[in-house]
Amino acid sequence: MNEFDFIRHYLQKQLHDPSIVLGIGDDAAVVRPEQGKDLHISKDMLLVNRHFFDDMPPEDLAHKILAVNVSDMAAMGATPKWVLLGAALPQLDSAWLERFCQSLFHTAQQFGVSLIGGDTTRGELAFSVTIMGETPQGLGLRRSGAKVGDDIWVSGQIGLAAVGLQLQLLQKKLPEKRGFSELTALSAHSQQACLQALARPEPRLALGQALLKIAHAAQDISDGLVQDLEHILRASNVGAELWEHAIPTLPELQQVLTPQQWRQCVLAGGDDYELLFTAAPQHRDDIRLLAQNCGTRVSRIGQITQQDLKIVNQHGQTLELNQKGFDHFAH
Amino acid sequence: MNEFDFIRHYLQKQLHDPSIVLGIGDDAAVVRPEQGKDLHISKDMLLVNRHFFDDMPPEDLAHKILAVNVSDMAAMGATPKWVLLGAALPQLDSAWLERFCQSLFHTAQQFGVSLIGGDTTRGELAFSVTIMGETPQGLGLRRSGAKVGDDIWVSGQIGLAAVGLQLQLLQKKLPEKRGFSELTALSAHSQQACLQALARPEPRLALGQALLKIAHAAQDISDGLVQDLEHILRASNVGAELWEHAIPTLPELQQVLTPQQWRQCVLAGGDDYELLFTAAPQHRDDIRLLAQNCGTRVSRIGQITQQDLKIVNQHGQTLELNQKGFDHFAH
Repeated sequence: MNEFDFIRHYLQKQLHDPSIVLGIGDDAAVVRPEQGKDLHISKDMLLVNRHFFDDMPPEDLAHKILAVNVSDMAAMGATPKWVLLGAALPQLDSAWLERFCQSLFHTAQQFGVSLIGGDTTRGELAFSVTIMGETPQGLGLRRSGAKVGDDIWVSGQIGLAAVGLQLQLLQKKLPEKRGFSELTALSAHSQQACLQALARPEPRLALGQALLKIAHAAQDISDGLVQDLEHILRASNVGAELWEHAIPTLPELQQVLTPQQWRQCVLAGGDDYELLFTAAPQHRDDIRLLAQNCGTRVSRIGQITQQDLKIVNQHGQTLELNQKGFDHFAH
Repeated sequence: MNEFDFIRHYLQKQLHDPSIVLGIGDDAAVVRPEQGKDLHISKDMLLVNRHFFDDMPPEDLAHKILAVNVSDMAAMGATPKWVLLGAALPQLDSAWLERFCQSLFHTAQQFGVSLIGGDTTRGELAFSVTIMGETPQGLGLRRSGAKVGDDIWVSGQIGLAAVGLQLQLLQKKLPEKRGFSELTALSAHSQQACLQALARPEPRLALGQALLKIAHAAQDISDGLVQDLEHILRASNVGAELWEHAIPTLPELQQVLTPQQWRQCVLAGGDDYELLFTAAPQHRDDIRLLAQNCGTRVSRIGQITQQDLKIVNQHGQTLELNQKGFDHFAH
């Protein structure tokens, strides 16, 4: 039994889905997309010690490699359906694989996706996931639809995963990269929330689908709030004013971190997998209501403008940017 | 400009395809499969020094990572349509990338596929390709349809890529693995053919599609003729008699290699990407004709039986197998 037989063994327990014509075990998987639907496809490669540490528990790892791909579907407003998994594994550690597969199976069920194929090979730990999902034909959230005057919204809380990474770096005491020692002052409860945000991101599937006919533009936050907002601005050929004080995050972070550190985590942290989207101001109440129905918090954090990205604080001061990132507020 | 912008720059030259609703540059690509078609999806991960050497010319590398995936579509009888490319690259070497992308673009056009998405990351050279193709609904070649009495067919010539690998190992003089020194006696022309077979496999797309209504079972030869035949036998719950003397290969190999080496390359070599398929005997003439129309040589190399795989030579002797592979012929 090779690794993929192992994975198949777990995943074949999944419920029978009539759209899967042929699953794992042939030269290709075969699916029959629904008529009148558009098919959304995305893939992400995750490498050890680049996207995750080699001692990450296999349960978290399996959750995360699926969740970051499901999040791409959420950002399109698509319903995820089918997943292909490529895995490079250094050796066959059956205890590790069993834990990995159980979590993969559980997480796939939770997100409503079926593993239909993939491959395994011997090598340094790495994963490549391809995910496919559907929207009604002609629908789907893009980065390119933001309009001048749109509100900018974000789901959940931002910056927690980045703080979680800093906490891990602190624990690891790596010679080349040290975490923020200021974080030792963070309450145990908040530390736990940040580590959880890093290990177990929750893709905003229900919210993405609920926004299909309302949002003008959307994307998930993987590279960092500002960088991902810039993706929307570039694709939509618009600018934005972003209100730093309105960005939802752990309030405690402001007491513990320096302003520079706070901005590094909240504005540029990444790995949040929250949805960033824009919509016309007349939909504010609709958006609050549908977010409530999805059980997801949403916050209005800025406005789309004609051009340029301006980050302002509650005093109306504009954040200066230098080559290394965010510098200080000026008039 | 990052690596993926680089790749996009090249690939956006590709002809406009109305089935691509949204290409590279958003959270996902969007395609609209044709009504009445089944969608075939396959993915392959290729790692440096495992699936290819690090000094492989980028033109060959781009061809090969696409070709091995297109070959999976050929083995299903599917028309390949869309490709997603994941790449881990150690550094941004623009000269290398330009050569890689030009070849990728050219090869994609040649196979009729469009690159619609993917991702790049920093890391040891590795690729993960996802390919999607279509067949008419309900059609598609499987491994599981072989029937007792079927002829076993193979396209092209087998074992050349394995000899090509041995030639490369000879040149490289690696301490851990040495090539067959006997191959220095191979003519320059044959050496060239074997190196070409390894670097530039030709997926049998036209043949696969032509076989859709005729073949009972099919798969492409990537792991080695015998091992891939065993995949068909296991999936179809049948056995086979394989005629060693009927396997098409370079005649010169028999003069140069020991019988053990010959079998290692021809029976177990792999990386051939030829089609192995079974069909009822009454279709022999049809198959020869359609193969001729595809410009592809086909050879009849055995027969499907009730159970077990028996490899026989022209004297009717049966090949014995030992733990290390193929041993010797006995009565």
